[in-house]
Amino acid sequence: MSLLVACCIISFAINHKYNKLNKMMESRFTVLTLGVDDLEKSLKFYHDGLGLPTNGIIGKEFEHGAAVFFDLKHGMKLALYSRSDLAWDAKISKHPRAATEISIGYNVRKKDEVDSIMKLAQKAGATITKPAQKAFWGGYSGYFKDPDGHLWEILWNPQLIPED
Amino acid sequence: MSLLVACCIISFAINHKYNKLNKMMESRFTVLTLGVDDLEKSLKFYHDGLGLPTNGIIGKEFEHGAAVFFDLKHGMKLALYSRSDLAWDAKISKHPRAATEISIGYNVRKKDEVDSIMKLAQKAGATITKPAQKAFWGGYSGYFKDPDGHLWEILWNPQLIPED
Repeated sequence: MSLLVACCIISFAINHKYNKLNKMMESRFTVLTLGVDDLEKSLKFYHDGLGLPTNGIIGKEFEHGAAVFFDLKHGMKLALYSRSDLAWDAKISKHPRAATEISIGYNVRKKDEVDSIMKLAQKAGATITKPAQKAFWGGYSGYFKDPDGHLWEILWNPQLIPED
Repeated sequence: MSLLVACCIISFAINHKYNKLNKMMESRFTVLTLGVDDLEKSLKFYHDGLGLPTNGIIGKEFEHGAAVFFDLKHGMKLALYSRSDLAWDAKISKHPRAATEISIGYNVRKKDEVDSIMKLAQKAGATITKPAQKAFWGGYSGYFKDPDGHLWEILWNPQLIPED
């Protein structure tokens, strides 16, 4: 009888642990969508200017559906979607641009890559908000805003070198 | 002599092509930093509420340095950083919250996972802006805002099932 009770307790514990784990989110996300005012302009910046691969604007056949997807590594995507359509889709109010909402960090393998990417972005139409310089945390970094005001940080951090 | 000239031309063309490619960005980013008003509150939401792994607040020894990093798959990170510190670091003005700047997409493998993640987020303190429902593009999705107003879309898209 005591064995049966023990089995029940172990079974409950395993199920409880499983359910708890199962209910948590996995440590990932799949798509980062940037709200934009001008799809064509942002597409040109990211594709022609920075070189990100895409099939261009898709979904025009749907009302509120036009979007751009850039294929990133590991099955991830960067997307562009009108701020108005995002407000409609998520049932929220449309807000003015706000550059302190996020920063997209792009880590490089060698320090001088920071300079070359910053130059590339500026040539593509980005606004440099902070030229590349030594960072307070020990690395080397600079910031720019894309044509729609989204912030990118290009950084060389010896503690976080991309693996591939 | 004509062979030498041909070799020089080919070599130049290869180098030019290589340099051009080398100057483009790779199709990736490493860190998504969310600007927040209250690090502790957002840490609690993402770690205790959603289950993302972290070592908590680090960098307090630096002025403007306090931040939280969550380890994601494939070497990526989700970070939390004060909006004021982000404005200081990137040399930009601090803006009010604006939920139409981005949406973070979390794709699931099975349709009913959308419901369970939405419930989990709501329990953790998220604001549901759009309950899970059939999407115009054929899948099933819902939106919520984190305690700092950042938008997440939890979606089941049969065309984009996460691989791992």
